[in-house]
This record gives sequence, structure tokens and C-alpha cells, in this order.
Amino acid sequence: MSALIAIGFDPGLAVTGYGVVELTDEGWRVRAGGVIRTASDRPRSERLRELAHEARELVETYRPCGIAIEEVFFATNAQTAMRTAEARGALLVASAGVPVRGYTPLQVKKRITGYGKAQKAQVQAMVQRLLRLAELPRPDDMADGLALALCYLLDARSPEGVDDVYL
Amino acid sequence: MSALIAIGFDPGLAVTGYGVVELTDEGWRVRAGGVIRTASDRPRSERLRELAHEARELVETYRPCGIAIEEVFFATNAQTAMRTAEARGALLVASAGVPVRGYTPLQVKKRITGYGKAQKAQVQAMVQRLLRLAELPRPDDMADGLALALCYLLDARSPEGVDDVYL
Repeated sequence: MSALIAIGFDPGLAVTGYGVVELTDEGWRVRAGGVIRTASDRPRSERLRELAHEARELVETYRPCGIAIEEVFFATNAQTAMRTAEARGALLVASAGVPVRGYTPLQVKKRITGYGKAQKAQVQAMVQRLLRLAELPRPDDMADGLALALCYLLDARSPEGVDDVYL
Repeated sequence: MSALIAIGFDPGLAVTGYGVVELTDEGWRVRAGGVIRTASDRPRSERLRELAHEARELVETYRPCGIAIEEVFFATNAQTAMRTAEARGALLVASAGVPVRGYTPLQVKKRITGYGKAQKAQVQAMVQRLLRLAELPRPDDMADGLALALCYLLDARSPEGVDDVYL
């Protein structure tokens, strides 16, 4: 079996978390993880272009079989939700050419812990366990990126296939 | 006075309207207007990349002094609003390097007709008049793009400057 690599993106205008996870014969392995930050004193269009550029570099460096991206449809603050959706738009531009799956936070929790109402700490503990990390993944945005990448790979090898994700 | 050119974008994943308006010594002039369509049978990331690419071509062709883009913060359908915001993200990536101003539909109506509750037909009639068009601008998305470009130029030459737009 050749290695499968997925990238997960947790979009945000100020901070986007990402995780790069590989599934090898020996199991899951973290290839990279971190956050892409953009400077709040720069115009929004420059920040989004910077975000798209950094994301594209990850895609070209790791050449993933797929990309998982967090989808949010409901938010308490409409303006924040719109800014996050714009960041997702920039990330999707950077993802062109690679299959992309969208996951809601509920879908991520369900896939990683089997329980849609899991706490964030439970999700992180399971990510730590699956990826055999010495410590809990930090910061949260990176942890979410790793969880998303895991979701993609879990679905990719699922024999039933995938039908409840947003494409 | 040298000519001022602005581009207006009315974002949408399926259809983005645009208008390119020039302010010369002789007054307003339409340089271009139309819609950018993306194919619904292609992945969202490909559609957004196509949108960003076409928008970038407009920016490089007309080298505007500024770009106006419609902002929507409230919507009856959250998923549609998110898809529109993603399209705006792609357009903002394409706008990098050029000043961008965001206008809500209410701000557009107010600037073009002086009245925030104006009907769409009233806005289009005023756009037709200001731009001395033989007919009402069509389709609606292009008309919105022209109205947005006009907003940018109206604000750019306003002696009071601009302070209630979203940057």
C-alpha cells in the first residue's frame, strides 16, 4: 500500500489551523501541523491572498490525496461567520485540483470520537491517541486541522464510501 | 484630470456580476460589464479558482483605482450566504494589490438613489441615467456590478471621504 496523505484546514481570516496526516503501513503519522496567521493591520484582500498562497504551498509540498475543510453554517455572529466563509473561499481556491470534502464540527466529533456531542478535549485526546503524539496537540486550531485530516483519511478507506459530506 | 476606473463585483458561486466604470472629463462611461458563470457540475474549489482567475483578468485588463464588492451579513438561507461569502473570498484574493471597499445592498441603494429603501428598478433606472445607457442594464447581476463601481467612484471623489464602508 502506498502512503495516503490528507491535509485538514480549519479556516479563519486571522488564524487558519492546518494538519498534514499520512496513513502508512505502520499507521497514522503527522507530517506537519500548525497555523497560518495573517496580519490584522493589512487589507482583507491582502490577508486572503496571503492565506491562499500559504495554503497552496502546503498543497504543493505534500501533494495530498485529499483535503478536508471545516464547514460552518450557523453562527451566533453573522459577520464573523462571513469572514470565516471568505477565508474558506480563499482556501478552496488554493485547493483546486485536489478532492475536497467539507465537514461540520458535529461530523468531525462523530468521526473522531463516535459521538457528535463530544467535548473539544475528548476530540483532542482521541487525535493524540490515534496519531501517537507525546502531548495533546496545540494550539486548538492546529488540533482541529489534524482532526479534519484524520476524518478525510478515515472516510477514504471506509468500505461504505462517503455520502454525508459537503463537497 | 486623468481617468478613474473602478470595478464592481456582485459575488456569487454560480453567477458573479461585474461592471467596469470610468470617470473621465466627459463624465461616467461604462468600459465593460457582464457576468462570470461557473459550471455547477464541477467541484466547488475548481469553480472558485475559475472565478478568481476571471476576476484577476478583469483587474489586470482595466487596472482599476479601486474595487467595490457587495457585502451581505444577513440572509434567510445560511448555506447560500456562506457560499456567497466563499465567492467573495475568491474575489478578494483576486483583488489583492488594489484598494477594496465593501458595500451592503442598503449602502448601494442609498448612494445611487439617495434612499436606502429604493426598489431594484429605481436603482437600475438611476444607473442607466448616470451612465447614459440606451436601455436598462441587464442582467440584474451586471447591473449590480455597475452600481457598485459607481459607488466606489462617487465615494472616491467625495470631499468628505468615506467612513461607513467595510474594508
